[in-house]
Amino acid sequence: MENLEFLLENKKFQEIKAQLENLNIADIAAMFENIKNNQQIIILFKLLSKDVAADVFSFLNADTQEIIINALKDKEIESIMADLYMDDATDFLKEMPANVVKRILKNTTKENRDIINKLLTYPENSAGSIMTTEFIDIKQELTVEEAFNKIKKKAEDAETIGTIFVTDSRRKIEGVVSIKDLILANKTDVIKDIMNPNVVYSTTLTDQEEVSKLFDKYDFYALPIIDNEQRLVGIVTVDDIMDVVKDEVTEDMEKMAAISPSDNPYLKTSSLTHAKKRIFWLLFLTISASITGAIMSFFEDAFVAIPALVTFIPMLMGTGGNCGSQSATLVIRGLALNEITLKDYFKVAFKEFKVSLLVSSVLSVVNFFLVWIRYDDPLLAFVIAISLVIVVIISEFIGGGLPILAKKCKLDPAIMAAPIISTLVDCIAIVSYFLIASAILQL
Amino acid sequence: MENLEFLLENKKFQEIKAQLENLNIADIAAMFENIKNNQQIIILFKLLSKDVAADVFSFLNADTQEIIINALKDKEIESIMADLYMDDATDFLKEMPANVVKRILKNTTKENRDIINKLLTYPENSAGSIMTTEFIDIKQELTVEEAFNKIKKKAEDAETIGTIFVTDSRRKIEGVVSIKDLILANKTDVIKDIMNPNVVYSTTLTDQEEVSKLFDKYDFYALPIIDNEQRLVGIVTVDDIMDVVKDEVTEDMEKMAAISPSDNPYLKTSSLTHAKKRIFWLLFLTISASITGAIMSFFEDAFVAIPALVTFIPMLMGTGGNCGSQSATLVIRGLALNEITLKDYFKVAFKEFKVSLLVSSVLSVVNFFLVWIRYDDPLLAFVIAISLVIVVIISEFIGGGLPILAKKCKLDPAIMAAPIISTLVDCIAIVSYFLIASAILQL
Repeated sequence: MENLEFLLENKKFQEIKAQLENLNIADIAAMFENIKNNQQIIILFKLLSKDVAADVFSFLNADTQEIIINALKDKEIESIMADLYMDDATDFLKEMPANVVKRILKNTTKENRDIINKLLTYPENSAGSIMTTEFIDIKQELTVEEAFNKIKKKAEDAETIGTIFVTDSRRKIEGVVSIKDLILANKTDVIKDIMNPNVVYSTTLTDQEEVSKLFDKYDFYALPIIDNEQRLVGIVTVDDIMDVVKDEVTEDMEKMAAISPSDNPYLKTSSLTHAKKRIFWLLFLTISASITGAIMSFFEDAFVAIPALVTFIPMLMGTGGNCGSQSATLVIRGLALNEITLKDYFKVAFKEFKVSLLVSSVLSVVNFFLVWIRYDDPLLAFVIAISLVIVVIISEFIGGGLPILAKKCKLDPAIMAAPIISTLVDCIAIVSYFLIASAILQL
Repeated sequence: MENLEFLLENKKFQEIKAQLENLNIADIAAMFENIKNNQQIIILFKLLSKDVAADVFSFLNADTQEIIINALKDKEIESIMADLYMDDATDFLKEMPANVVKRILKNTTKENRDIINKLLTYPENSAGSIMTTEFIDIKQELTVEEAFNKIKKKAEDAETIGTIFVTDSRRKIEGVVSIKDLILANKTDVIKDIMNPNVVYSTTLTDQEEVSKLFDKYDFYALPIIDNEQRLVGIVTVDDIMDVVKDEVTEDMEKMAAISPSDNPYLKTSSLTHAKKRIFWLLFLTISASITGAIMSFFEDAFVAIPALVTFIPMLMGTGGNCGSQSATLVIRGLALNEITLKDYFKVAFKEFKVSLLVSSVLSVVNFFLVWIRYDDPLLAFVIAISLVIVVIISEFIGGGLPILAKKCKLDPAIMAAPIISTLVDCIAIVSYFLIASAILQL
């Protein structure tokens, strides 16, 4: 709707309503993000038909949700809360200030309030915190026809009807059937005979990253979640997992760049928060780099005798850092995708060793000639070439090894990426370089 | 099945068969990966019941698939090819050597062969290359009951029945209904009245990354794909998109570490290929770092006069590189998630400027005192503190700006990450540092 602003300003509400009818929920939600005027946001929301209002609401960002909630009457809040899926309702409440939460919960049925309060107690990033309680479960004695009747009754409120769970009287999972199984079966077939009794599930406290690995492995659309008494209490659907994957990748990338991870988008994070997220590692790394500097003092005589030696420091440090971060990135990603496991330690080490021999040969030969031509000093060129070989081998070994070591120590391998490795490799590069130079050039 | 090897060696085939029945497809496939003996792989595959064989086959890696295909009779290949989904069949054929492909296609029905040959023509990473042709389409005149009958007939072969597409006689899409809509409708309702006529789709040539953004925005389970004559030719399902997301992230991370991206897992890539993927950028970066070195020659007098100046090079270069890569990572990820758009250029620049002021103040103050204490020289400490402020501001500005500039030039922002930025920042850091030192210390 390109002329939305014009229509809102000129109060052409009927026209807006007509156009809204043809739009997808996500597209309607996207329109809200472009409106600057709070009053217009509220008007637009009130123009939505009752059957899409809650759906659209769940797609909005927290700021817009707050603007709308504050403008709604108690009754309207009640209706939204009745229509929201429980996981969306919980996500939304997590973002609201306390006084708003209080007013919302006051306008929520006791049953839903209890569910929300329960969902809010699950730890961040647990399966419980992302699951929804609106699933369909049936008993195994039902016939397919009876099952369809039950599904028909519950479908409106269920987040998915693609996967139906079979539970006993204590809500323990006994099996799973897909809607496809049911459609292909005969009306008189009994669920017990067509269900798959081999159900993969997670518990409420399983980490969401583990849950996403199950979706990746099994190509699920929905996964059942059980509590510590083995009762089915919720499901996680594949669209929630898409968000999890996105968040986990962002977190990994942030860790790899030595940033403390956060959930907020770049532009919505204050400069102070940005600075706080970055300063810890920067301080740590300046101090460790100062140690490299201190070590260099031992070689002062060498670089006062041959000042040209100093001019190779950026190249050697840079190459070490880059080689290390290449290896680290490949190994960190391989570990995240389960393509590399802890027992592959020697395979990785051996491969990095072979790669570093190949890479360093090329780099040494090229740089040997570059230095020879520029300084007309084959011995200096030789020092640089040998140093490159040593620096590259050590860097790739460290880059490939540290993430695996981190995982062995139950740390996140992603923290062992470029910044940490560069700092470590810098130190080793400088020391090797000056030792080699001192030996060969007899300083 | 922990004792699988034992059972295979002792030919306890009945027992294996019995145990296989209770296992999930993905779990059965995982068992194959652990068998070292090709003969046992073939035996295990032949023990699978006909209705799961093709499904399991599609989950296997290419090496295992090749071992199995080479051991199968023509008739057995024919049966597998008839049962595979077309997208899985195409993926599998892409990985096989030419002579194997020839034999497989000889044992494929003409109809499927035509579909596969068509799918193989779509460019890599296009929607056409990941779609499947096994979808369900119905006509809008049907009643819900008639639609269910049609679905029942086609369900067995369809990759998903969650989303049903409505097409006209020329196969142009007219609408979409979910299986939930159908279940909730009355038997006598006409599809036309309950379908959603507002269909989101992609074309066969759309990049898979764009397709995955649509799934992210709309929370789809399946997206229709049309050809250039607007005809529905396939669907992409959410499980394919999970793989796309994984591959795209790996590609981004590799680019960010200055590695040419590839599709193969770390351990399955030969050392020579690894070396080739890494050498281009390393060579480029050593040469650009040599330029930084050449620039340093201009300041030889300075560091011969005060050799201690050299010992701060690693810290200043490291901090510049780390600040730059922090900013670059945040901006690259923000661009990938559409949280930052091109028109946010000034907002990003301003935010990075504020962050760099905050971060550099802390770093300068800490380092000022460290240097003062160590060298007992407040003027030298002052030089380092001022240099840090300048280096951090410039690094964050470059780190935040280059990815946006890359995107403006239609390049992938991910190439503007740590390695490129470090090399650029190193050069600027060194020059600023020596200029500041020369001015303040009057060298």
